[in-house]
Amino acid sequence: MITSDAPRELHLNVNVLHSGFLPSAWRVPQADPYAFADIGHYVAIARMAEAAKLDAVFLADNAAIADQIQYRSITALEPTVLLAVLAASTSRIGLIGTASTSYNEPYNIARRFATLDHVSRGRAGWNIVTTADLPSARNFNRDDVPEHGARYARGDEFTRVVKDLWDSWADDAFLGDKAAGRFTDPRRIRPIAHEGEYFKVQGPLNLPRPPQGHPVLVQAGASGDGRELAARHAEAVFSASISLDEARAYRRDLHERAERHGRGPRAIKVLPGLTTIIGDTEAAALRRRDELVDLIPWEYSLNRLAGTLGIAPDRIDPDKPLPQDLPLPNGGRGNHTFFHATLAAGRRTGLTARQLVRELAGGGGHRVIVGTPEQIADDIEHWFREGAADGFNLMPDVLPEGLRAFVDGVVPILQRRGIFRTEYRGGTLREHLGLPRPARRD
Amino acid sequence: MITSDAPRELHLNVNVLHSGFLPSAWRVPQADPYAFADIGHYVAIARMAEAAKLDAVFLADNAAIADQIQYRSITALEPTVLLAVLAASTSRIGLIGTASTSYNEPYNIARRFATLDHVSRGRAGWNIVTTADLPSARNFNRDDVPEHGARYARGDEFTRVVKDLWDSWADDAFLGDKAAGRFTDPRRIRPIAHEGEYFKVQGPLNLPRPPQGHPVLVQAGASGDGRELAARHAEAVFSASISLDEARAYRRDLHERAERHGRGPRAIKVLPGLTTIIGDTEAAALRRRDELVDLIPWEYSLNRLAGTLGIAPDRIDPDKPLPQDLPLPNGGRGNHTFFHATLAAGRRTGLTARQLVRELAGGGGHRVIVGTPEQIADDIEHWFREGAADGFNLMPDVLPEGLRAFVDGVVPILQRRGIFRTEYRGGTLREHLGLPRPARRD
Repeated sequence: MITSDAPRELHLNVNVLHSGFLPSAWRVPQADPYAFADIGHYVAIARMAEAAKLDAVFLADNAAIADQIQYRSITALEPTVLLAVLAASTSRIGLIGTASTSYNEPYNIARRFATLDHVSRGRAGWNIVTTADLPSARNFNRDDVPEHGARYARGDEFTRVVKDLWDSWADDAFLGDKAAGRFTDPRRIRPIAHEGEYFKVQGPLNLPRPPQGHPVLVQAGASGDGRELAARHAEAVFSASISLDEARAYRRDLHERAERHGRGPRAIKVLPGLTTIIGDTEAAALRRRDELVDLIPWEYSLNRLAGTLGIAPDRIDPDKPLPQDLPLPNGGRGNHTFFHATLAAGRRTGLTARQLVRELAGGGGHRVIVGTPEQIADDIEHWFREGAADGFNLMPDVLPEGLRAFVDGVVPILQRRGIFRTEYRGGTLREHLGLPRPARRD
Repeated sequence: MITSDAPRELHLNVNVLHSGFLPSAWRVPQADPYAFADIGHYVAIARMAEAAKLDAVFLADNAAIADQIQYRSITALEPTVLLAVLAASTSRIGLIGTASTSYNEPYNIARRFATLDHVSRGRAGWNIVTTADLPSARNFNRDDVPEHGARYARGDEFTRVVKDLWDSWADDAFLGDKAAGRFTDPRRIRPIAHEGEYFKVQGPLNLPRPPQGHPVLVQAGASGDGRELAARHAEAVFSASISLDEARAYRRDLHERAERHGRGPRAIKVLPGLTTIIGDTEAAALRRRDELVDLIPWEYSLNRLAGTLGIAPDRIDPDKPLPQDLPLPNGGRGNHTFFHATLAAGRRTGLTARQLVRELAGGGGHRVIVGTPEQIADDIEHWFREGAADGFNLMPDVLPEGLRAFVDGVVPILQRRGIFRTEYRGGTLREHLGLPRPARRD
């Protein structure tokens, strides 16, 4: 089925996960293990992505240290600071960074992303996360994780405050009239006087409205609360769908929810995570996958799988399929995207735990395609045309080489087929994503 | 009196106050009024300062919009994001940014400045402020300003947590041992398990120890509480001294306080703010000052003076000296640096309010020198040799042209006299300032 909203455009972000999606990425011969904290690594990737006309670089984030750091590379550099360096090192590609609504203040986040939008001349995006894990809570004066509904209620109010702050200056508030000595028109700058359940913020923001009006709002809603937050605010969603049917159902659901909030059918671009492992032949790609998976200590993979499923490692038998019908981890309070995705993969494949880890290339809950550039382009086009995705959040196996293989091998095929741009048409992330610049509500 | 700790080195930072220190800076013919929000303006200034071998660029900040924005340019872009762009656009100069301990969380601030230190390869500094004004409080869920002592108690605990987080990774915690599959040594990464009066932070931080160990800690303590905070933590102090005697007494007091906390006599570099208005002749410089001051609406200057003194504008008679023996503004809860400095200038000069505004070049409470490059170099050398300053936080009248006049005119004289470097000897801000890299407490 070709969806009715063609001609759509394919969108491709690259998720710059330090050394790459594979937990062993830092161990391959050509890798610099210190890449995770080396700005030169990120600059090289952003420039490579821009040369291939990708929509954006995407930076995940955590508010605590990851576990199992004896085995694997981690997310370390704070995204807004890192993206500012990338803003200075590139000129067209979008810059999306993650920040938590649970452990920040809206005035600060409005300011940082507005600043990033100014210094990049309209290329900023904010990936809104509510942060479910206990170690993060314990870095911010708490002994426990806030309850799921409360996290999302705060996240919604937080996002509304941020948008109101971005709108506190009218686009024409700055005058710069030297002769008359009028710097701004104060009548076009207003307080927001917000008093809500979680925040009391007077405003206005202390800088002009961002070039994009609002930096692009990105989210990753999977739960009911998460999908509602996405439906209300998100313009791009980073999802975790393993099968085409599930992805299509998810995208349809998000669109319907968005329409119930009075938003148009193309208001949200749905971009599932996609790990690619590329070889000149399918056999070479599979060999590459196996070599990368074999470099991951089994103990690491087992712990990660058990952590995702919220069970003790000894409940997983490496030589049997995963236990099914598990209860939601943490009494339902956490982020369950990967729980659902991993269980679904287990059900779909019927593989043993050890085989499944191989299939998932380390067990991250995101979809993995192993193959030639042609095979990967076919898969991407298929999902796109079937209405399962508006594009993908690419998670190359190893960075930068996995991205190099993608941009040299897959991108030209997608361009020849006419579904991916050969040149940027605009200068802002909104223009890349085909999103309108929001008007200021008067 | 030549102080006994010679040979000292002179240090010069440039305070990048948007269009310049003069409230009319944005109105001069060659100014771009939009410079305050234009990243190109800041990049040009940073490169100019680096070419002249200055120690650092310094960025002030506010957590609320300034008043009187109809008349004057403002601080707008968030410092850590802005400095990250400057990190990518320069290679040697230090990068000091302001962030508030009252309206942030220590985990986030530790992370952002550590990231800035990583991406700049050891050039970051954090200017610690406690934020005294009511509009800022009202952007962060409060109806009133926190009491002075509580602000500083929180500031002290906040800073201790940040330092502990920077020390949570040992310098050798990262292994990157590909063959053995050991990414880090978890025994060399520790939680901080902080439980204090204001914060509960488990840690560890999620990135390696900063290149400088700790980014340089900068402060601007003027009150007793402020000086104690500086004495405990600051490595450079941005002070506001109008007279040489006052500056020398302040510096001596800070050094004595630091020694009481077990710190050495050169542990703190004292850098008073200094506005320069430069002309080829003294008459030309005075003419320049008068032209700039004449471009400031009197209503603006009057409101600013009244605001600094915490009195109603109608209590100031333009043609009489300032009222003296005024009580501390806001019942003593605010930041009184400029109050004291402005009153002192009024006392010292005996000028009428209108004349004083002219003398203070707009009335900012910082010292202003108007003269030829030679006169300015003489003054700088005099303060430096008399033990009143270790250097200055330069606040050029107009940016970038006032900085251009300083680096082309004054810097070569200071270099010829052998009190300012002609080349950077190190790559980090600590090396520029002659500060040791702090060891991690085990």
